[in-house]
Amino acid sequence: MKITMKNLLKLIIATLVVLVAFTSCNNSNSSTSGALSSNVAERVYVPPGQHDSHYAFISGGYSGNVTVYGLPSGRMFKEIPVFSQFPTSGYGYSEETKPLLNTSYGFIPWDDAHHPDISQTNGEIDGRYIFVNGNNTPRIAKIDLLTFETTEIIEIPNSAGNHSSSYVTDNTEYVVAGTRFAVPVPQKDMAIKDYKGNFKGTLSFIKVDSEDGGMEIKFQILMPGFDYDKAHPGRGKSHGWFFFTTYNTEEASTLLEVNASQNDKDFVAAVNWKMIEEYVNNGGGKMMPTNYAHNVYDESTHTATSTMKKEVRVIDPSEVPGALYFLPMPKSPHGCDVDPTGEYIVGSGKLSANVTVHSFTKMLDAIKNEKFSGDAYGIPILNFEDVLAGAVEQPGLGPLHTEFDDRGNAYTTFFISSEVVKWKLGTWEVLDRQPTFYSVGHLTIAGGNSRKPDGKYMFAMNKITKDRYLPTGPELEHSAQLYDISGDKMELLLDFPTHGEPHYAAAMRADIIKERSKKIYKLEENNHAYVAKTDDDVKVVRNGNEVHISMTTIRSHFSPDNIEGIRVGDKVYFHVTNLEQDFDVPHGFAIIGQNTSELLIMPGQTKTSVWEPKQVGVWPFYCTDFCSALHQEMQGYVRVSAANANTPLKWSLGEDIE
Amino acid sequence: MKITMKNLLKLIIATLVVLVAFTSCNNSNSSTSGALSSNVAERVYVPPGQHDSHYAFISGGYSGNVTVYGLPSGRMFKEIPVFSQFPTSGYGYSEETKPLLNTSYGFIPWDDAHHPDISQTNGEIDGRYIFVNGNNTPRIAKIDLLTFETTEIIEIPNSAGNHSSSYVTDNTEYVVAGTRFAVPVPQKDMAIKDYKGNFKGTLSFIKVDSEDGGMEIKFQILMPGFDYDKAHPGRGKSHGWFFFTTYNTEEASTLLEVNASQNDKDFVAAVNWKMIEEYVNNGGGKMMPTNYAHNVYDESTHTATSTMKKEVRVIDPSEVPGALYFLPMPKSPHGCDVDPTGEYIVGSGKLSANVTVHSFTKMLDAIKNEKFSGDAYGIPILNFEDVLAGAVEQPGLGPLHTEFDDRGNAYTTFFISSEVVKWKLGTWEVLDRQPTFYSVGHLTIAGGNSRKPDGKYMFAMNKITKDRYLPTGPELEHSAQLYDISGDKMELLLDFPTHGEPHYAAAMRADIIKERSKKIYKLEENNHAYVAKTDDDVKVVRNGNEVHISMTTIRSHFSPDNIEGIRVGDKVYFHVTNLEQDFDVPHGFAIIGQNTSELLIMPGQTKTSVWEPKQVGVWPFYCTDFCSALHQEMQGYVRVSAANANTPLKWSLGEDIE
Repeated sequence: MKITMKNLLKLIIATLVVLVAFTSCNNSNSSTSGALSSNVAERVYVPPGQHDSHYAFISGGYSGNVTVYGLPSGRMFKEIPVFSQFPTSGYGYSEETKPLLNTSYGFIPWDDAHHPDISQTNGEIDGRYIFVNGNNTPRIAKIDLLTFETTEIIEIPNSAGNHSSSYVTDNTEYVVAGTRFAVPVPQKDMAIKDYKGNFKGTLSFIKVDSEDGGMEIKFQILMPGFDYDKAHPGRGKSHGWFFFTTYNTEEASTLLEVNASQNDKDFVAAVNWKMIEEYVNNGGGKMMPTNYAHNVYDESTHTATSTMKKEVRVIDPSEVPGALYFLPMPKSPHGCDVDPTGEYIVGSGKLSANVTVHSFTKMLDAIKNEKFSGDAYGIPILNFEDVLAGAVEQPGLGPLHTEFDDRGNAYTTFFISSEVVKWKLGTWEVLDRQPTFYSVGHLTIAGGNSRKPDGKYMFAMNKITKDRYLPTGPELEHSAQLYDISGDKMELLLDFPTHGEPHYAAAMRADIIKERSKKIYKLEENNHAYVAKTDDDVKVVRNGNEVHISMTTIRSHFSPDNIEGIRVGDKVYFHVTNLEQDFDVPHGFAIIGQNTSELLIMPGQTKTSVWEPKQVGVWPFYCTDFCSALHQEMQGYVRVSAANANTPLKWSLGEDIE
Repeated sequence: MKITMKNLLKLIIATLVVLVAFTSCNNSNSSTSGALSSNVAERVYVPPGQHDSHYAFISGGYSGNVTVYGLPSGRMFKEIPVFSQFPTSGYGYSEETKPLLNTSYGFIPWDDAHHPDISQTNGEIDGRYIFVNGNNTPRIAKIDLLTFETTEIIEIPNSAGNHSSSYVTDNTEYVVAGTRFAVPVPQKDMAIKDYKGNFKGTLSFIKVDSEDGGMEIKFQILMPGFDYDKAHPGRGKSHGWFFFTTYNTEEASTLLEVNASQNDKDFVAAVNWKMIEEYVNNGGGKMMPTNYAHNVYDESTHTATSTMKKEVRVIDPSEVPGALYFLPMPKSPHGCDVDPTGEYIVGSGKLSANVTVHSFTKMLDAIKNEKFSGDAYGIPILNFEDVLAGAVEQPGLGPLHTEFDDRGNAYTTFFISSEVVKWKLGTWEVLDRQPTFYSVGHLTIAGGNSRKPDGKYMFAMNKITKDRYLPTGPELEHSAQLYDISGDKMELLLDFPTHGEPHYAAAMRADIIKERSKKIYKLEENNHAYVAKTDDDVKVVRNGNEVHISMTTIRSHFSPDNIEGIRVGDKVYFHVTNLEQDFDVPHGFAIIGQNTSELLIMPGQTKTSVWEPKQVGVWPFYCTDFCSALHQEMQGYVRVSAANANTPLKWSLGEDIE
């Protein structure tokens, strides 16, 4: 019986793979018909000098970063380095930013950034921060939307494959992170085959300070060792709850494409976090020894610090009865989405024919009346029929994610049939469908996961590109399509490439934040340990074989630009302060043979590059940002003498060193 | 007198700085008027499913990379990693690609990529390769336009600030690299103040193999210690010559914004490379001991190797009389551009009121008739008036770069007055001007530096962005504007952001290469040392504390996906082969806690990630590219035991390890 089941599944999977290929190739020719009119061109054209109406913050997936796009133009305005080294600005190379990438595993120059979520107040996007998860080495990062820079990264211990993350509650009380790959907690050397019943999947609730946005792990729930795939907070009426889809409730440890597809239904885990928070506030839970990094960037010192934390509060579900339930959901659900009213919990079973929707009201009723069909590791399983709100019947193949507009409609992506389907909440009727190119993953509507969606644009982010753009060899950027969803039918407007591999995006009206965007860092507020605020502060200080150079840069020179007395074997710290106080006048710093990247220094900022000269000689440095008409003249020299030489330490600008 | 001169110059510079700021702010409101009509929107709109007509390969400057854009849409299709680590694909992190970033200074994860140039045949773009220079640690890279990947990087010894690079001759006989920052050659510990007369600026001629494109440094010319800023090969009638602008002919070593602006004229260096080539072919020049890296990627093994070269052939100009001349050029020329006929050499003095044009014919005549005004370090200086073809009188402020169309027109950028000016070759009359936003550096016309320009589009790449797009904090992408130049007047079509800091771009008609773009790597041609072409080749081999895992990946599993017997202290090499042979089906590989980036593995390719586990436990890995409906199931585990444990080395797929 088991062999037959496996073979059957293999056949289904093979068919799905073929279908994807088939769909991808066939849609190619029909793609242009909907969008040929000049009317469409005008609707995405933002004339030179004018601004887009919306921001989209698109995760870079395996780029480790977040990109900022404008809508409707589909233009990329910035790549914000988050989990990955970014040679462009020196992020992850400069002394100030390296601590941001510290973890309990040491320095990690990369992660897989999946789900950006913008901070909310009363369930509406407030535009203060973006949170985004690092999937591979579990972390949550925070981007400050005043500066569009990463200012905090917290590691998540006892977790692996931090995928069902990062999502914020109605008032950004918490950002949540769930474990995709169950692991031994705490880690130990054990046989992989003993996974079942022994591995755990933790759900982490990270408290966000309402004043300064600071993150701290308030508690972790030690759940059964399923794969917690996606998550969504309750909204409005369901505020106080959090929902997580699970797959691999089989707890298989090998060939999951077959072995994790056995159960007819997996679960949505419903977590009453307010109940657990109260339990914790009353001293509940246990402190478990562990090891994780908490990295904070201080804008005043322009410097990040990394602190290793040694314990975390964990909760066993059995300690808080009534706080956790499982809602059955067909066939390996992926997406987990809650509508703006908070009533509907949409689960998309990847291998299910339908999109299944549960009712929050019915869930409360089922809990109250103990309509359980059993339990999983002591957590009650609610009766499927008793929580079911309805289902969208056979809307497409391979449902993944759902977003919502402000008119009671839902939009679900279908990976295998490459389309977005619009359907009505409550009636479950399909209203419209539009092809995507090709094999769509996530989709985004501005505020489409909040209580107040902005139902003007929707964009679909695709996993397969093939022929959409001019070819670029075997490796292609991923494609996205922008649709106007303000009418009854969705209308394809634009096809635009993205950068990295988008997994979800957060979007919002531009006017929420554009006026408050920071333009410069005030020099008088710069408290960097090695800042030089005027040429009088410029200095070169030797401390053993460390040399600290407090240097300034302004159009169009460095001070100093001649330095002598450096020796082979020295570790030379260039602390460069950009004295400019005008918007958009960065300076760069690079020196020949440096084993790091350049520095790109914003007005009022100080950044540090370390250089370890290996040979005697006279070595040039220069400004890497074309800053003025005399930018090319913005250069200097460092004289490096032998390790045992006694060339005096001297520096100058505008006159020879004698 | 000298003080007065300096103060005067400071005043001029201060005025220029103010002018830039003024220009930038004031143009803001007038920018939209030219491009409001729907007609313009249609002309840049590429409907979903259709393709752009042109490729643009835009240098990333301080990103270290080259980006691929489509015109007229302004969409970015790929970022090609060149000199910088690129976490997205594992470039510079994977074992196969790390050798590409090796130098005589050790591993360098970044450079400043300035001037891409596409290979040419008979002075026309042939679309085989792109060459691009690394500015900071002198290097030239080659990108193969079959795969859009970097396949070769050669270091340039005896150089610094490799800025007047990389430009190719009519038949790609040579790619040329010139030194911007003069240095002691060979390097030695000496006083910076003794620069004048002692430092050198080398001009390097790198032979390109006509069959396989392989690069080798044929010779270096040891020139006086000026700053060699930009360069251009002769074309057609002037094929066989190369031209380099110089500044800092004052040989100042400090405060160059003042001290390098003293001379009324600097030079264009004219190099008869054919004469020197003949001299070298007859055994001329001297081999000088040095040290530089030559790094080559082999597509067959999917692996790069780095070789350290130990000597280079150098030429003293005095050895080859008649091969080198200086043409006087006003006020710190930056751009050096030769028109499609090869007759005109356009030099843009940054501080000059005019754009000065020299005549190749007159130059030959002046040489023949020895119309010299003196010499510089033994190199004859031609009489300015005797080589002058003409000048465009007061066309704008701060001229930088010139490109050409196919109708005898030139287009010059003006940094300070923020505009592109169109003028007529031969008559020097100004035909049109269009504002740019703001402070334009380079501009590009497809083939606009070749013998056959394509005069449809021109785009301007700007240094200041300010208010062009939605704000993104203090750091902004740079803006570009696309113009239609097919009519008498330039017409502004589009404003689009770029990535990094573009310094020049090479563009061409898409049909030259689009049909031959490679889609996959053939598995049967994969000769990687650790390839696994079928599941039968899968293996895990321990060699001391090194463990080599030859692993496969295909929708939707890794083989093996369970591995035991790894120990703390091991160095684990995951050699992952992507068995797919369909276009656009990459797989990714990442494992928790790895101190490098992910791998993104194209169909038929093998890539290697090193992982050094630090703790016992059961650690997951997964596919980082959403590859199929069951992508989320594509995961595995590695069991790590203590350093002294005797857990047997075993691996499996689909069954438990017993």
